[in-house]
Amino acid sequence: MCQLLGMNCNVPTDIVFSFTGFATRGGHTSDHIDGWGIAFFEGAGVRHFVDYQAATASPIADLIKRWPIKSKNVIAHIRKATQGRVALENCHPFVRELWGRYWVFAHNGDLKDFVPVLDGPYRPVGGTDSEQAFCFLLQQLRRRFGDTAPELPALTSALRELTDGIARHGPFNMMLSDGSALFVHCSTSLYYIVRKYPFAEAKLADEDLSVDFSQVTTPNDRVAIIVTEPLTANEKWIAFQTGELKVFVEGAVARV
Amino acid sequence: MCQLLGMNCNVPTDIVFSFTGFATRGGHTSDHIDGWGIAFFEGAGVRHFVDYQAATASPIADLIKRWPIKSKNVIAHIRKATQGRVALENCHPFVRELWGRYWVFAHNGDLKDFVPVLDGPYRPVGGTDSEQAFCFLLQQLRRRFGDTAPELPALTSALRELTDGIARHGPFNMMLSDGSALFVHCSTSLYYIVRKYPFAEAKLADEDLSVDFSQVTTPNDRVAIIVTEPLTANEKWIAFQTGELKVFVEGAVARV
Repeated sequence: MCQLLGMNCNVPTDIVFSFTGFATRGGHTSDHIDGWGIAFFEGAGVRHFVDYQAATASPIADLIKRWPIKSKNVIAHIRKATQGRVALENCHPFVRELWGRYWVFAHNGDLKDFVPVLDGPYRPVGGTDSEQAFCFLLQQLRRRFGDTAPELPALTSALRELTDGIARHGPFNMMLSDGSALFVHCSTSLYYIVRKYPFAEAKLADEDLSVDFSQVTTPNDRVAIIVTEPLTANEKWIAFQTGELKVFVEGAVARV
Repeated sequence: MCQLLGMNCNVPTDIVFSFTGFATRGGHTSDHIDGWGIAFFEGAGVRHFVDYQAATASPIADLIKRWPIKSKNVIAHIRKATQGRVALENCHPFVRELWGRYWVFAHNGDLKDFVPVLDGPYRPVGGTDSEQAFCFLLQQLRRRFGDTAPELPALTSALRELTDGIARHGPFNMMLSDGSALFVHCSTSLYYIVRKYPFAEAKLADEDLSVDFSQVTTPNDRVAIIVTEPLTANEKWIAFQTGELKVFVEGAVARV
């Protein structure tokens, strides 16, 4: 199984603190050594970094821990291979375009007997069940809504139905973003926290590192962090329910 | 106008030497300061780096100059904006998927009155004529060949026809790769060199840097470098003809 990290905010925020704790699990405090990746939306564009080395040994992971890229939507993944060999094309997150937007997707789980009919324009490049699921999601969204993106409630409802169907094949913890919303589906393990005013100090569970968020934020900032296992020891993380899909917009859970 | 750099080889090779000279034009020896990007195929996967900062000021460009990523197909670009604002989504190269392969595309030129009908699955995310041309190319290839990739001669012939049509709208120097072949179309300025045994020393034109390729190669290696303006002063670069499309495979010009 793999681990997921997502961030959704109302102002572009860097993920250096959370990523530092998360990346430590890619080889040091956990054995997720079969690659890693991270994608940052920046406006309509995406910075996409993947590597089949362990995050703890990767020169790019090292750069990202030092370079505060600011983004409103981020998805990161560290991989422990279940399906698909250790190779660049099998590293999450995956990126495709639909409706003139980039979509970013990462998955933790293991789908059995999942052989969707992929006869639309989205085909997997690598050999993972995860990329198959991503291609299937985009194909079905395009089939349902045609050439025009729907409003958030209709999109969310379609994704609830589709992720429910995929999760019948096995654990399907996943994160999906088009740069405006972050969709998160939980099968087995996901937690989230919304940091907002009054901000406090947070202390990583995997590294000896603390940050006092009240020193680096403004009162209007709001940041949602979603992760496979809580990243800090001194904050209250909320567990997702099995089968739950939540949508994060502007750093908060959207009521859709 | 922008500048392009491409590499096609028969064994995975690093582009540190050529990229170092090329990146210098992004702010020092030339005024291409509106962003840059580079994409490396590694197997079926792609490492894709884009930035809207000048290459000479970018922490990722700095990393790539020090980190020898080995690849058989690379496309790089430094941008001087003509159409589309300075933003991440407008930085080349662009990446899309077709036939279960990633395709990488970069363009130098300026297309006028180019308004292709994009009613297939490929839509531009940014505001450049270049991304429009890329979406149009993929749409037309998919329309012509359906769901299955054609053989190289048929693909090349289709790309000759399509690039000819686009080039009627203005300069269309472009590089396109699916990870096995590198297609290069010239409207105004492109040069190439094939480095092979016996290898010699090369000296950058833009930086005080030399490399003796005989020390870092084997006799079977073959590396084609294609660029807007020759990168070295002491080698014989071959100019493309206007309207010419060449295909590079395994480090040599393919006879198709």
